[in-house]
Amino acid sequence: MFEFDVQHRDGRARVSQFQTPRGTVITPMFMPVGTQGTVKGLSPQELTDIHSQMILANTYHLMLRPGELLVEQHGGLPEFTGYPGPFLTDSGGFQVMSLGHMRKITEQGVVFKSHVDGRRIDLTPERSIQVQEALGADVIMAFDECPPFPAERDYIERSLERTVRWLERCLSVKSRPEQALFAIVQGGIHSDLRDHSLDLTLPFETPGFAIGGLAVGESKAEMYPAVAHTASQLPESKPRYLMGVGHPEDLVAGIALGVDMFDCVYPTRTGRFGYALTDDGRLNMNSSAPRTDLSPIDPECDCYACRHYSRAYLAHLVRAEEMLGPRMLSLHNLRYLHRLVERARAQITAGTFQFWAKEWAHRYFRGSLPEWFQAALETGLVPLRR
Amino acid sequence: MFEFDVQHRDGRARVSQFQTPRGTVITPMFMPVGTQGTVKGLSPQELTDIHSQMILANTYHLMLRPGELLVEQHGGLPEFTGYPGPFLTDSGGFQVMSLGHMRKITEQGVVFKSHVDGRRIDLTPERSIQVQEALGADVIMAFDECPPFPAERDYIERSLERTVRWLERCLSVKSRPEQALFAIVQGGIHSDLRDHSLDLTLPFETPGFAIGGLAVGESKAEMYPAVAHTASQLPESKPRYLMGVGHPEDLVAGIALGVDMFDCVYPTRTGRFGYALTDDGRLNMNSSAPRTDLSPIDPECDCYACRHYSRAYLAHLVRAEEMLGPRMLSLHNLRYLHRLVERARAQITAGTFQFWAKEWAHRYFRGSLPEWFQAALETGLVPLRR
Repeated sequence: MFEFDVQHRDGRARVSQFQTPRGTVITPMFMPVGTQGTVKGLSPQELTDIHSQMILANTYHLMLRPGELLVEQHGGLPEFTGYPGPFLTDSGGFQVMSLGHMRKITEQGVVFKSHVDGRRIDLTPERSIQVQEALGADVIMAFDECPPFPAERDYIERSLERTVRWLERCLSVKSRPEQALFAIVQGGIHSDLRDHSLDLTLPFETPGFAIGGLAVGESKAEMYPAVAHTASQLPESKPRYLMGVGHPEDLVAGIALGVDMFDCVYPTRTGRFGYALTDDGRLNMNSSAPRTDLSPIDPECDCYACRHYSRAYLAHLVRAEEMLGPRMLSLHNLRYLHRLVERARAQITAGTFQFWAKEWAHRYFRGSLPEWFQAALETGLVPLRR
Repeated sequence: MFEFDVQHRDGRARVSQFQTPRGTVITPMFMPVGTQGTVKGLSPQELTDIHSQMILANTYHLMLRPGELLVEQHGGLPEFTGYPGPFLTDSGGFQVMSLGHMRKITEQGVVFKSHVDGRRIDLTPERSIQVQEALGADVIMAFDECPPFPAERDYIERSLERTVRWLERCLSVKSRPEQALFAIVQGGIHSDLRDHSLDLTLPFETPGFAIGGLAVGESKAEMYPAVAHTASQLPESKPRYLMGVGHPEDLVAGIALGVDMFDCVYPTRTGRFGYALTDDGRLNMNSSAPRTDLSPIDPECDCYACRHYSRAYLAHLVRAEEMLGPRMLSLHNLRYLHRLVERARAQITAGTFQFWAKEWAHRYFRGSLPEWFQAALETGLVPLRR
């Protein structure tokens, strides 16, 4: 259980199989986010149709409503939500920080007021594990603090050390062997603090490691060196999960740096706002051009929307505020990201990832590759010291 | 084309096959409403999965946005919307009356301001047919006036006579033989005015007839005698369509009186409001009971929602305002009405419709059948004078 086999390498990029109790997933992979136990607008059948693998659900939201006990009564997230495959739950930590009212962080944990009904809630490492065990995901996350950006160096340092003490408490109460607990490396954008966090975290030898504390407001030029630095020191034999990251260009850059798992609300959220992801960048369905365009969003995409609908029809749905519009754009956008990682895997397997990534970016960025992206690709070619 | 074969009779109720260019449908049938070229929240695949047959689309909405020419450029409604089966379009008349601003009705037609962008629009019988020919449905409707309730007798009389003159104008410009134009019988709840409308309308021998002008505010006790009176005088050999009607009890009562076709926004609208249709009446998913109920909405229902979800999960989606909630309730409610007519057809075929209808109503109305419903069933047993 939780065996992780790297099958192909191309620079730092790799294709691996990750065994979980509810099925083996192939990485690199993008995980759709089902915040409240549903990927917004989509059915489990649609997730299966677009080759989703693992679904992320949010501990914070589900503990507040409907409560983890109801999910447990159903038998866990797959039975509750109807999605029969593997799940990952976050720890609730990140969302308490961003959504909880009047939150107070102490050594013990976080106290906050529910954004749903104003109740006072205590979320501690122990409680996070208790909730995540009730939800029953295949992969669960250690309870951590993700400091905002910017934050004082001192604060980041004290926070990451506390996060390690919280990790220890998580592991000491964890009782279900069929769940893999991933530790989270913090340290902001400071390489020495990342090293400090790695030094304290790696000895726990959890079955996977996450790169946390990024994509919280820093620039990509600040973020990617931190991704590269952290990923390069994580064990080769375990999955690496870059939390909360998932624009198309992030997947390509992250994969180049050896990241295996991604999640983000971006594809569904931008879909609800009327945007479609394509190899040519983001298409705004609210603009005038698509209104009379009889071609599909992407003739190479195999999603339901691209097989059945013109851009003109989808633009009509968006303008008319019909539910099918955001639904179809969410479906397409998730399929786009799944196809993107599928293409990346094929290129890694063939040993042509770097060439493909540059070609893809040339079209996506319309000729002018950002420096951070080029730097990430170049770093991906630097051999790891092991 | 447009052959209508009555295959089974049970009292006035009947099971028939109705041939259209895009497929043969079996009546009685309920038509989901796709106002703006989409049945709210559902994909064509889902409509096929729940055994929808013919979809209704609204001429008024589609001519205003995206415009009928765009639909025509796609090849018609099936190609535009992705639903490959038969369509019916209304004439736009009813919706101009209820949605148009500053509308003015003259012998020529209706002038109004678009509710979308304030443009001044002329809708005439000729224009209605032009738009409906561009939309390309299999069944199109004559441009009529549906007077509000209550209305003066004199007004209803003058209006129905004008509606007949409009019918004549519709037929004189209609050019596509692959579209069946149905005439609409008006006359409010007055049997002598219904007779007057029938006398003027039947000679046109259109391939089907609609019962219009009902379900606009009158009570069921006022409406059903008008349905019975009109339906009993429509030709046996042609489909009868009761416009805008479609609560479960209306389907059963209407079928008893010999109605073949129904449409209504009710199942999808009440679904979006959080209600689920069942044989025990309407289940409010916003109430407290479903929140902890691990059983499906209806264990006998074969829809996706009933096969995959507990009431508790669906109630969670509704409370959390997740799109999947209204989507799944809309799907279930449409499947409920489709199953209801499927059950009615089986009972008509077996000659047991009246017995079944009473049993169904006993449970649905919790023991106390409304007088109007009993009267409709009884009228359904009175042989027709032919």
